[in-house]
Amino acid sequence: MALDLTQLPKRDDANVGTMARGLVGSEILRIAAEIRELTAQGRKVCNLTVGDFSPREFPIPASLGQGIANALQAGETNYPPSDGVLDLRQSVQRFYERILGVKYPLEGIVIAGGARPIIYGTYRAVLDAGDTVIYPVPSWNNNHYTHMMGAKEIVVATHPDQGFMPTVEQLAPHLPQARLLCLCSPLNPTGTMISAEALQAICERVVAENRARQSRGQKPLILMYDHIYWTLSFGQAKHVTPVTLVPEVAQYTVFVDGISKAFASTGLRVGWGVGPPSIISRMRDVLGHVGAWAPKPEQVATARVLDDVAGTDEFLKTMRLRVDERLEALYQGIARMREAGLPVRAIAPQGAIYLSVQFDLVGKAGLQSNDAIRKMLLEKASFGVVPFQAFGLKDDTGWFRLSVGAVSMAEIQDALPRLEAAIRATLSAA
Amino acid sequence: MALDLTQLPKRDDANVGTMARGLVGSEILRIAAEIRELTAQGRKVCNLTVGDFSPREFPIPASLGQGIANALQAGETNYPPSDGVLDLRQSVQRFYERILGVKYPLEGIVIAGGARPIIYGTYRAVLDAGDTVIYPVPSWNNNHYTHMMGAKEIVVATHPDQGFMPTVEQLAPHLPQARLLCLCSPLNPTGTMISAEALQAICERVVAENRARQSRGQKPLILMYDHIYWTLSFGQAKHVTPVTLVPEVAQYTVFVDGISKAFASTGLRVGWGVGPPSIISRMRDVLGHVGAWAPKPEQVATARVLDDVAGTDEFLKTMRLRVDERLEALYQGIARMREAGLPVRAIAPQGAIYLSVQFDLVGKAGLQSNDAIRKMLLEKASFGVVPFQAFGLKDDTGWFRLSVGAVSMAEIQDALPRLEAAIRATLSAA
Repeated sequence: MALDLTQLPKRDDANVGTMARGLVGSEILRIAAEIRELTAQGRKVCNLTVGDFSPREFPIPASLGQGIANALQAGETNYPPSDGVLDLRQSVQRFYERILGVKYPLEGIVIAGGARPIIYGTYRAVLDAGDTVIYPVPSWNNNHYTHMMGAKEIVVATHPDQGFMPTVEQLAPHLPQARLLCLCSPLNPTGTMISAEALQAICERVVAENRARQSRGQKPLILMYDHIYWTLSFGQAKHVTPVTLVPEVAQYTVFVDGISKAFASTGLRVGWGVGPPSIISRMRDVLGHVGAWAPKPEQVATARVLDDVAGTDEFLKTMRLRVDERLEALYQGIARMREAGLPVRAIAPQGAIYLSVQFDLVGKAGLQSNDAIRKMLLEKASFGVVPFQAFGLKDDTGWFRLSVGAVSMAEIQDALPRLEAAIRATLSAA
Repeated sequence: MALDLTQLPKRDDANVGTMARGLVGSEILRIAAEIRELTAQGRKVCNLTVGDFSPREFPIPASLGQGIANALQAGETNYPPSDGVLDLRQSVQRFYERILGVKYPLEGIVIAGGARPIIYGTYRAVLDAGDTVIYPVPSWNNNHYTHMMGAKEIVVATHPDQGFMPTVEQLAPHLPQARLLCLCSPLNPTGTMISAEALQAICERVVAENRARQSRGQKPLILMYDHIYWTLSFGQAKHVTPVTLVPEVAQYTVFVDGISKAFASTGLRVGWGVGPPSIISRMRDVLGHVGAWAPKPEQVATARVLDDVAGTDEFLKTMRLRVDERLEALYQGIARMREAGLPVRAIAPQGAIYLSVQFDLVGKAGLQSNDAIRKMLLEKASFGVVPFQAFGLKDDTGWFRLSVGAVSMAEIQDALPRLEAAIRATLSAA
């Protein structure tokens, strides 16, 4: 007879520390649970809430899966080096040189178990408790990371007219107080990209700020540039990086990247950070103890995939097309509703797997908040979306993230008429 | 032409925070680098330094490798749930019930990318900066984790006569100050195991302490029990757990565990924490943001392996035998040298992949420290070992960790005469 511990109390906050007790659960996971319940009841939901891929719609490259199986066969099953398998660091070095046009030293590349640990490692390596982080909203999880560090935050709310990207005018007054500036492009949750002009202006300001600090013997402002979605850009949008625009900012810039989105491999846990060795080496030390390492067979296989120039180009191209057709279908559907006079709008797809859509219904038909709109769309149209509040935005602006990684074209086409009908019904009830 | 950033400065401590700057590099990795250099020069070294397995000597279960390949084929490539794949949590639940005789609720089980993140998550979830951790030395990395938390520490040096395990008499005076007590058995680096009597006495003290705290409305003392090596025990040694000895301590106990050592799978990054849901749920929140998740194909495959009762029993039995024969060969070799009058001794193998050996040579032939002995053994006998200083022990006691996961029986048999000759030469030079 086993000792039965199944009745151990579920909550006892005396057991845990202040930081852990103050962590806020993910809004997206709460919404995902609601949708799971509905689908369990037999409802067919067009689920645009998850920032992930359905393996059916977006399988990983066949060569990656085969490469992992081969690495397992070859006994690549013991510890990888704490900064990652050398082959993979070298192939990331070549990948960046080949496609992004920047050649980093090997000491400037660290491998981790996904992109999240790279973000966490950047925060942990750069910040002391009480230091200030500046980040725009909507953005992904910077609020949680700031909380975990015991850091102060300056939150800059961005505007749809700027594609939800921060401007140098918005950031500049706050830069002197900050130790870490967090930018992301293509941006989760908006699917928008920062322009070369806007990014260059910000980077020049960072460099000017750091020259001034250096003359005063102060610690520099570090720029975290999360471009995990950079291979996914559409239409005229062109991905730019801080270091190619303003080479002097390279000494302060950490890139967040990995295979999760580019190769639809969120579950394989391979990410990398690229930046100045002075920061990357400390991130390696931090992540080594945290233990957030990428599995070795996946590292070995990823190195091969990145070095397969033709295969990778082909995969990324197909992936872009398949994401883009979904985003376009949604965007065109929303545009048609707008033309038909409905209070909706969307920003044309630029990057990532997301579309920014505004359902301008707050204050209509008793809908008092973004979350009320979200619930109505889920109940009336089986249309699952995430409000920008889940990404740190406070105001009920009617803006939502629609993610296309886990839906088929048919699901989108089926859902658009339901969406339109639900909005019309809401308006006529108002 | 790519932008050449290869000359970015290697060190600039102004870039990073105080915690990261204060992290001490791994002594073991420094020694490993020395050995790599020697082997690159063509020297054949009996490398007993790495706490890892050579896949040639210790391959993973064939069913685990096949299971991962199958899971990849089946498209298990997207995000796992942040607390782990349900199937795996259920199979860990059954594994613990079946072999350890304890049934935990599913909310008391969290999956992570190896056992390290579980240790980190325990520290992070339980402690606030300034809280006190108590741990015995030699032990593995508690010094680093304490530093990362900004916690205070009480370090208890253990004695070979107690198998390097702490006694309740040593711990009791310090328990009232502590928020976290870290125990490990089988112990890395000593290969020893705590006895039922010793562990029971400690657990009873923890329970008494927490009853007193509860009556005063104070936060309890949490016990982290790292038993990642528990399937590897030898001879008469029997693995015991806090909760089966003193069920009341279950509400304060977090187990650290995973497949890394049991299944020779250090590179596959699958670990788990088991404990009260009140702590485990917060660890899940912390680790979710850290992003230290286990890869999904590995999770799916591990669930199958744990549920394969006969296959797992057989694998673990063979693994035990193969580790034990290596430990025994080393132990017998050291015992013969001791009988021949040399100043060496070893503790009979009890668990893990380690042997505690004392080369009592400090002060002889100009050898002033453990590290001097280590260097002499490496240079004269091509015999690579790690001093207990790498595990937080301050004194030069002549004790070393010998790890057998990456060596063959032949390498051990070849090395023993070299070792004896080097010791004799050292003594005759004294």
